[in-house]
Amino acid sequence: MKHATFEKGVVEMGHGAGGRDMADLIRHLFVTAFDNPDLTGEEDQAILSFPAGRMAISTDAFVVSPMFFPGGDIGALAVNGTVNDVAMGGADPVALSASFILEEGLPLADLARVVGSMAQAARTAGVHIVTGDTKVVERGKGDGIFITTTGFGQVREGVSLSARNGRPGDVVLVSGTLGDHGVAVMGRREGFDFDTNIVSDCAALNGLAGALLDAVPQTRLMRDPTRGGLAAVLNEIAEASRVGIAIREDALPIRPGVAGACEILGLDPLYVANEGKLVAVVPPEQAEIALAALRAHPLGREAAIIGELRADPDHFVEMETAFGGRRMVDWIAGEQLPRIC
Amino acid sequence: MKHATFEKGVVEMGHGAGGRDMADLIRHLFVTAFDNPDLTGEEDQAILSFPAGRMAISTDAFVVSPMFFPGGDIGALAVNGTVNDVAMGGADPVALSASFILEEGLPLADLARVVGSMAQAARTAGVHIVTGDTKVVERGKGDGIFITTTGFGQVREGVSLSARNGRPGDVVLVSGTLGDHGVAVMGRREGFDFDTNIVSDCAALNGLAGALLDAVPQTRLMRDPTRGGLAAVLNEIAEASRVGIAIREDALPIRPGVAGACEILGLDPLYVANEGKLVAVVPPEQAEIALAALRAHPLGREAAIIGELRADPDHFVEMETAFGGRRMVDWIAGEQLPRIC
Repeated sequence: MKHATFEKGVVEMGHGAGGRDMADLIRHLFVTAFDNPDLTGEEDQAILSFPAGRMAISTDAFVVSPMFFPGGDIGALAVNGTVNDVAMGGADPVALSASFILEEGLPLADLARVVGSMAQAARTAGVHIVTGDTKVVERGKGDGIFITTTGFGQVREGVSLSARNGRPGDVVLVSGTLGDHGVAVMGRREGFDFDTNIVSDCAALNGLAGALLDAVPQTRLMRDPTRGGLAAVLNEIAEASRVGIAIREDALPIRPGVAGACEILGLDPLYVANEGKLVAVVPPEQAEIALAALRAHPLGREAAIIGELRADPDHFVEMETAFGGRRMVDWIAGEQLPRIC
Repeated sequence: MKHATFEKGVVEMGHGAGGRDMADLIRHLFVTAFDNPDLTGEEDQAILSFPAGRMAISTDAFVVSPMFFPGGDIGALAVNGTVNDVAMGGADPVALSASFILEEGLPLADLARVVGSMAQAARTAGVHIVTGDTKVVERGKGDGIFITTTGFGQVREGVSLSARNGRPGDVVLVSGTLGDHGVAVMGRREGFDFDTNIVSDCAALNGLAGALLDAVPQTRLMRDPTRGGLAAVLNEIAEASRVGIAIREDALPIRPGVAGACEILGLDPLYVANEGKLVAVVPPEQAEIALAALRAHPLGREAAIIGELRADPDHFVEMETAFGGRRMVDWIAGEQLPRIC
C-alpha cells in the first residue's frame, strides 16, 4: 500500500482516497488555514444558523491557467468570484464551501500558497469557508488545481435585483476599469512582460455592492462582468429585460496599459474578463447618487456612467465609438478567452 | 472566431467561454433538464426563501472513472452523494448547486445522459438543482466530466448529530450490504465481466435517514461510508468520539457476489466505497427500534447491528473475525481506490 506523506512534497493519489493521508491533509492544511468555528474537519457537512429570509446561493468552478498570475491566483479568484456572485444578488455573503480537484504531482507548496490566498481573501471579504472536499486525479487527468466554491448570503430586506428588471431610460454604470484581469492572465500565459501595472483586479465586491445598495436601494440589478466581459453582461441584460442598450466608448474606463496590451494580444477590452468590477443598472434619477456612492468606495474610485437602456425590439447592444460612429456589441463577436477564471 | 455548436456533437472550448454558445448550452441542456422555478439560467445566483433555523451545507467533487458504471453514473452519484451528506447531518435536503468542468471533445450525448441522470436523481430525492456553472478545459487537462455539487437542507428540530456524540455502549448499525459501489466501479474499470447483480448501490438516503430519525430522534450520529469505506467511517467516529469500536465480521451484510469479486480484485470490503448506505450510532436501548425502522424502509431491508462503541483510550476499531479471532481495522490499511466517487 502506498502511504502518501507531506514529506514527499507533492499531492499523491492517497491524498484523495478517504484514508489517514486525506484526513491529515484536511486537518493540517485546510482546517488550519481556514480556521473558523464552523469548520471542524470532522463532519461531512457544516451546520449554520440563519434567521428567516431570502438566501442567495451561487456556485462557480475555477480552472484559471496559469494558477498564479499578476495580482492574484486561483485561490483568491475562487473566493472573490463566488462572493461577488452572491453580492450581485443583493445579498451579504456569509459562508462558502470549497471543493478541490487536485492533479497528482502538484507541489504541496503550491497548494498551500493557494489555500493561504483563499484564507486571506475570505478574511478580507468577511466570509467563512465552512466545509469542503478534496479529490485527486491522476497526472494528465487534471491541471494542477481546480476549485469549486459555493457561496451563501442573506438577501437584504427590500432589495430585489434581477437581469429582468431593466427599463428603457435606466442608466448603466461600471465600477472601474475594464479588462485588467483578462489581460493580466493572458499576458502571463503568453509570456509577455507587460508593464507591472497590469495586474488582475481580483477583489471581493460585497462592500462596494453594499455601499451602492445603501445609497440606491432602487438599484435594478448588478452583475460582475467576468467571462465574456462587459459585452456578455450587457447582452444578457438586454435579452432578459427585453430592451436595447446604448453605451459610449469614450465613457468606458480602460487603463492605457491595458488598452495597449489588448492591441498586442489581439483582444477587445469589451470582451475581456474582470474579477473586481460590477455593472449596475439604476433608475435615471438615481444615476448621480449611484455614481457618487461607487466613487466614494476604494474599489469604485474610477466608476463611470457608460450608457443607458432604451426601447428596442431587437434587444441590441450598440456602442457610439470615440470617432462618433456606431458599432454593434454582439456577445458572440470578439475573441473568446479560455480558462480565464 | 470559433463558434461552437451543438451540431458538432462534442464539447468545445467555446461552451465555457461566457458567450452565446455557453448560454445556449445552459438553456437548452441544463435548464431544460433541471426544470424548476428557482432555476432561470438568467442570473448568476439563485434566491430561495428559508424559515429561521439551522441549515446543513455540504459539498463534494465527483471525479469517478469510468463516468458510466453498473447501477449509475457520475450524474446520479453527484446528486445522491451530496444529498446524503446533507441528510447525514440530520437535515432534509432542499436544494443543490451543480458545477461542471468539462473536457474539450466530450461527446454532448454523454453530457446529456449525465445531466438526465442528475435530473432524475434530483426528482427521486425531492431536491431542486437551483444554480450552476460550466467550465471547459482543453483536451488532456481534464477527464470527461467532473461535477461538484453543494447541497443545502434544513436541520430537523431537536436533532443534533455529530461524529463526537458517540458514547461507550452505543450500538453501531449499517443500513445494508457493503462494498457494492466500489466493486461495481472497479469491476467495470478493470474490464471484469462480473455477475450482473453487482451494481452500485448509488441512492439518495434522505428518506431512510428521515425514517430513522422519526423512530429514534436520540440517534447520536449518521455517516455514509463512501471513500475509505466502513473502516474510514468507524475510525473517524472512534477518534472524534474518543472511544473504541468493536464490530463482528459475521454481522456485516456483504453480498456473496461482492465478496467473491473483492477476492478477485484484491479488495477488502471494509475499505470499499458505498454510495447508498448509512452507518448510524444509537443509544443501546434504541438499537432494536432503529434496526426495525431501517428495515421497514426499501433502502434498509438488509440493515444490521454490527457492533458497539466501548471505552478505549487508544480509540481502536477492532473486528471479531468469523473464525473467532480479532483483527485491527485501521483506516490506513487495505487498498486505496482512486476515483471511486
